[in-house]
This record gives sequence, C-alpha cells and structure tokens, in this order.
Amino acid sequence: MRRFTCGAEKQYGGPPPYQQGSSQYQGFGGFARQDPPPPRGADPQLWSWFASVDKDQSGSITADELQRALVNGDWTSFDLDTVKLLMNIFDTDRSGTIGFNEFTGLWKYIKDWQGVFLHFDRDRSGTIDGRELEQALNQFGFRLTPQLLVLLQRKYGSVPVPAAARGYPAAAAPGITFDRFVRACVVVKQLTESFSALDTDRDGWVQLNYEKFLETVLTLP
Amino acid sequence: MRRFTCGAEKQYGGPPPYQQGSSQYQGFGGFARQDPPPPRGADPQLWSWFASVDKDQSGSITADELQRALVNGDWTSFDLDTVKLLMNIFDTDRSGTIGFNEFTGLWKYIKDWQGVFLHFDRDRSGTIDGRELEQALNQFGFRLTPQLLVLLQRKYGSVPVPAAARGYPAAAAPGITFDRFVRACVVVKQLTESFSALDTDRDGWVQLNYEKFLETVLTLP
Repeated sequence: MRRFTCGAEKQYGGPPPYQQGSSQYQGFGGFARQDPPPPRGADPQLWSWFASVDKDQSGSITADELQRALVNGDWTSFDLDTVKLLMNIFDTDRSGTIGFNEFTGLWKYIKDWQGVFLHFDRDRSGTIDGRELEQALNQFGFRLTPQLLVLLQRKYGSVPVPAAARGYPAAAAPGITFDRFVRACVVVKQLTESFSALDTDRDGWVQLNYEKFLETVLTLP
Repeated sequence: MRRFTCGAEKQYGGPPPYQQGSSQYQGFGGFARQDPPPPRGADPQLWSWFASVDKDQSGSITADELQRALVNGDWTSFDLDTVKLLMNIFDTDRSGTIGFNEFTGLWKYIKDWQGVFLHFDRDRSGTIDGRELEQALNQFGFRLTPQLLVLLQRKYGSVPVPAAARGYPAAAAPGITFDRFVRACVVVKQLTESFSALDTDRDGWVQLNYEKFLETVLTLP
C-alpha cells in the first residue's frame, strides 16, 4: 500500500519515499491500474500522487481516502481530527472532498509542516518532545507558561502521561507525532486569535457567556 | 484478531461478540497461548477479556493495546483521544497503564456507554445523527442551541460536513461513531462544569485571562 510518510522523513524537503515507484500497480481485481491522464498544465508527479490517494478514481479525495494515505513517521495513522482539519482548510469549494487543485494546496501545506517538524525534532526521535514543542511555539510567536506547555504536551502526546512524569520539563513524557503536532500548533494559534478578538479593550481579560464559551471550543480542530 | 466492537451491537447489554472464542490461540511465535490464571475472586470472564487485550501478557494494558482492542460498530478504530480519555479516568494509580482492577471499572464504563449509544441510535444506523445527539444531551440535562448542536455534530462527526449540509437539522451530515460520541458528551459535560465553576456570581458570564482560557481548553479530552 502506498502511503505518505510524514514527520520522520530524513530527506528534508525531499520527495516522498515511494515516488520511485511506478504509477501502475495491480489492483485488488488483478487488473493493472493506470492513473488517468493529468489535467492540462498539472504537475505530472503531483497528479500521480493525487491519483494514488484517490483509490476509487472518483476524481476527488474523501476524508477516508486521505486518512488511509497519510501516516506518521512511526507508521501510526493520522487522527481523524487532523484529517478533518486538512479537509476543512483545503476543501475550498465545500464539496466535502478534495479535488486536484485543492490537493495542490494541501500537499504544499503538509510539506511545509513536515519541514517545520523536522526542523524542531532536533534529536531526530520522530516525535516532538516538551522542549522541542516550546521552541517551535516560541518561533511561531507564542510564549506559553510552563504549566500550559505541560498541558499541551499531555493533550497531544501519543500516550497518557503517568503522574511520575507530570513535572516540568516532562522529560519522560511521550512525544507528539506529526499529525498531532500540526493540530496542537493550529489549536494554539486559533485560541490565541479567538482570545485576541474577544479581548476588545486589550486588558488581558475576556467575558464570555455559555454559548460563546462552547462555540469557541467547538470550532477548534 | 479479537476486538471489542462498540456501538452497533444489537445485543443490548449482551456479551461481546467474541466471547464464544477460546482464550487459547496461536501466538505469533507459534506457541499456544494460555491466559494466566485469574486473581482470587476475579470474574473469570472479565479476566479472559483483560488477558486478551493485554497482548504482551505484562499484567497491565497500555494505551496502544487498548486502542487495538476497541473498535466502533463500523470497524473503525477508536480515536487516540478517546483511548486517552478512558485511560485518564481509569488509571487510578497513575501508572500509565490499566491493571485488572482498573479494567473492571473501564469495562463497565464502556458497557454503560454502549447502552446509552444503542438507546439513542434510534434508527440503528450505527452512528448518532443530529436529532439523536440532541435527544441524548437533553436526557443528560444539557440543552444546547441548534447552532451549538450543529458545531458539535460537525466536530465529532466522522467526516467533514459539506456546506450543502450545514443547515439545521443537518440531516445529510455524517453521524457520530461510538468513540467520538462518548468524547462529545464528556466534553459538553466538562465544559458546562468548567463554566459553572468559573461563573461564581451566577450571572451567566465568566471572565478569563489568556492562561485560564487555554487551560480550560487543554484539559478537555
């Protein structure tokens, strides 16, 4: 199965690992599959990737197809919530699926995040640990307290954090895989923007009623 | 592979589907596996289930083992976030894993939620749609506005909701699988309790600074 490995790719900015493969392969039915020809002006390589994700050759990619195609560096699947985050950004015509033009943007976005991930995964562990997360967020202009960084790491880390590792810095805490790292960063950005929009008098406090409180949370990826 | 199917089980309150299976099977190494004997006083059936989830026979269940064991009615895996939610509730000794005594509570919790899910999945579709979600939340004492219900359905539904289906009631919107239904309900409960705790003067408004705002969100499952 051809899948897009994200996060632990050592070839920074390089092509995905399977690009050497032919775009022709044996389908389940035993028939050789030929990708449909690319639209005029389309990057043939990008078209080949798109066609490999579009398993049913419908001409557009569903959330399920995208989830099956994307894996983290440790071969775990992307969370559905991250897949939905990607779809919500790039499904610009709101069809519920990703067409080829939309895929071009999605592909670049993933590649850019992959670059960010590899840059901050200093110890090349394949996951982002507490210190690396702090450095990434600082670089993006977000300065969270140590307590918030621990909460963020606990929420987006790949396994529950036992009490013994709940201090700061949480050296023993599990790292954050690529898909959850993207989501953590997007959530911090969105929350910071929401807070800023709500804090109209810039006094560092916001007033919320129950509906607005829930709305703010339920619109997060 | 023995897995615990949740949500679409028609045998309301009945035993999980694989219980007819032997607790002995061929391991990867080709050796017949025998579950270790249950602790004194343990329910032998529950012990057998515990042993089947504890693949490496370490005597306790990791998040990864739990995630591999639990599937929704449509055979999709549980989200990692729901697995972490379960672990965080039932890992009472904060070891990072689930021992047999903790498993007893976890098992009952899942069975109870399965009952709730089956009760509200009126059309037996295997997922909870917008109307069913509203009825479930009403039953739990939460009355959300139609707008919030749509946001909740969009966040916890299994695929992105195209614009065409973004009205209310969102009949064409995708349903919510068992694992995400549990998480949605727990999130609404926790947010309502957080709001209530913050609204000390009971005027329907809360004041938050940036740290408290992020903390409230980052402690959600």
